[in-house]
This record gives sequence, C-alpha cells and structure tokens, in this order.
Amino acid sequence: MPLIFRRAIEADLPAIIAMLADDELGRQREDTSVSVADCYRDAFKVISADKNQYLAVAEQEETVIGTLQLTFLPGLSHQGQWRGQIESVRISSAARGGGIGRQFLEWAIATCKEHGCSIIQLNSDKSRSDAIRFYESLGFAASHEGFKLKV
Amino acid sequence: MPLIFRRAIEADLPAIIAMLADDELGRQREDTSVSVADCYRDAFKVISADKNQYLAVAEQEETVIGTLQLTFLPGLSHQGQWRGQIESVRISSAARGGGIGRQFLEWAIATCKEHGCSIIQLNSDKSRSDAIRFYESLGFAASHEGFKLKV
Repeated sequence: MPLIFRRAIEADLPAIIAMLADDELGRQREDTSVSVADCYRDAFKVISADKNQYLAVAEQEETVIGTLQLTFLPGLSHQGQWRGQIESVRISSAARGGGIGRQFLEWAIATCKEHGCSIIQLNSDKSRSDAIRFYESLGFAASHEGFKLKV
Repeated sequence: MPLIFRRAIEADLPAIIAMLADDELGRQREDTSVSVADCYRDAFKVISADKNQYLAVAEQEETVIGTLQLTFLPGLSHQGQWRGQIESVRISSAARGGGIGRQFLEWAIATCKEHGCSIIQLNSDKSRSDAIRFYESLGFAASHEGFKLKV
C-alpha cells in the first residue's frame, strides 16, 4: 500500500490529536473530549503561518496513520548552520511495527536536508526504550542530555 | 556592576562569534579568521527577521560577555503548548564563575514565560559535566536523550 507523507491540513487535526493521546505519556495530557478543542485549532493556525514549521502526516489508503513536526532553526554556531528539529512523532497503534515509522523518519531527514539543514536533532523521553533503539538504528547519536523545565 | 540582557544587534557579532569559538568544542568549528564571515552575517539576518527567534547578549560595562539564543516553538501536543528552547549558551571565559550564567539563564526562562511558553528545553553535550550540573541546579531535569544526526 503506497504511503504518502505531506503537510498537515486542518481536516487532519482529529486524527493527529487522537495519535498524540494514544500513547502512554500522552494519554494524561491531551484533550479528546470534544471534536477538536480550540487550543488545537489555534496552535494549528500558528504553526501553519510559520514558514519554519512543517507539521506533517503519513497517509495510507486515505487514512492518516502518523504525524510529526519539523522545525527549521537558523543559528550562528557552526558557521551559521541550520538545524532541523523533529518533535511529536507518533504512529497510530494499528499501524505500528510495519516499518512506517522508519520510512517517515527517513522522509523527515530528507526534508530537513532539502531545507538546508546539516544537523538534525530530536529528544526522546528516557522511558521510551523502544523509541531510543529506533532512533539509534537510524544513525542518531544520544550525545546530549535533553533537559526540560516546566514553568 | 549592573548586567544588561538584551536582543543582539549586528555590531555584537564579533563578540558573539569569539564566544562561540572560545570553547573546547567550539574551537574546531567556528571561523574567526576574518572580521565577520558572511555566513554569520547571513545567519544573523535570518534570525533577526524571525519573530520566534531571540538572539540575546549579556552586557556589562559596555562589553558583551554572554550570548544565548531563544526559540519560541508552537506545537499541538500538551493542548497546544508553546515550548521555549535555549541554544548556544556561552559566557566569555574572563566572566565565568561569577554567577552571570545563572542570572542570564534565569532571565532567559522568564523571557520564555513572557512569550507564553510553559515548558523550557535545552540540550547539553554529555561531555560538558559542569554545564550539566549547572542546568540541574536551575531546576532542569535530564529526562530526555538528546539525539543528533549530521547529514
């Protein structure tokens, strides 16, 4: 079955939010109580208006089965190098285990390169041991501590 | 001596680049061979034109003694939460050890909050043990693996 990777549109929001919530860590923190809460619609508008944001979905047989968000980050260090950052990677539980995540990440890496990025970065919660092995298998090195502070 | 934290201007570039290079890891990767290489001027223009980027300097007695870059990241997860990201933190070697880094980071955290961020994130190379202790002392938790991939 052919896989399509493309920029998300507003009609994808219910599927994206369901995937964000369908996860051990996400279950406690997302709101799927109404069709699409305003907080998600507002965030979608901001993301879509920012040319350095690329909210993506993976689609198969007209069903959205994956999501991730790319950010292209300009910076001075490394002689003005652009960084590609990957956040909020999710594959729907029904579609896991078939190599879709790998194809999606390979597409994400290629898309960052097309946008001029020469380094790609992402964080993964240390409790997600499967995800950590997955990113290592794609060539990522866990060279950094990923710090978070809730404010 | 009063400390000023402010948005960087183009005239700060020589001092910022010198601080990026004056570092165990940075020495090998920055270009201080000419006054200010075009790659830095170009990157500075892109950063300055992006309202979600905030390149900052710390100044004392009209001398730039610190730099960091904030990025305000919109996202869908956590019900549309904004993230503040801190990158490329440097304090000039002559100014280290006097608590300036701590004040600068506290200012950075407050600035992210003012921009609506409810989580702050940063990565630190695992070889920088002093930096890691410093971020932990500010309340950051090393909950994530920070992955990098050069492409």
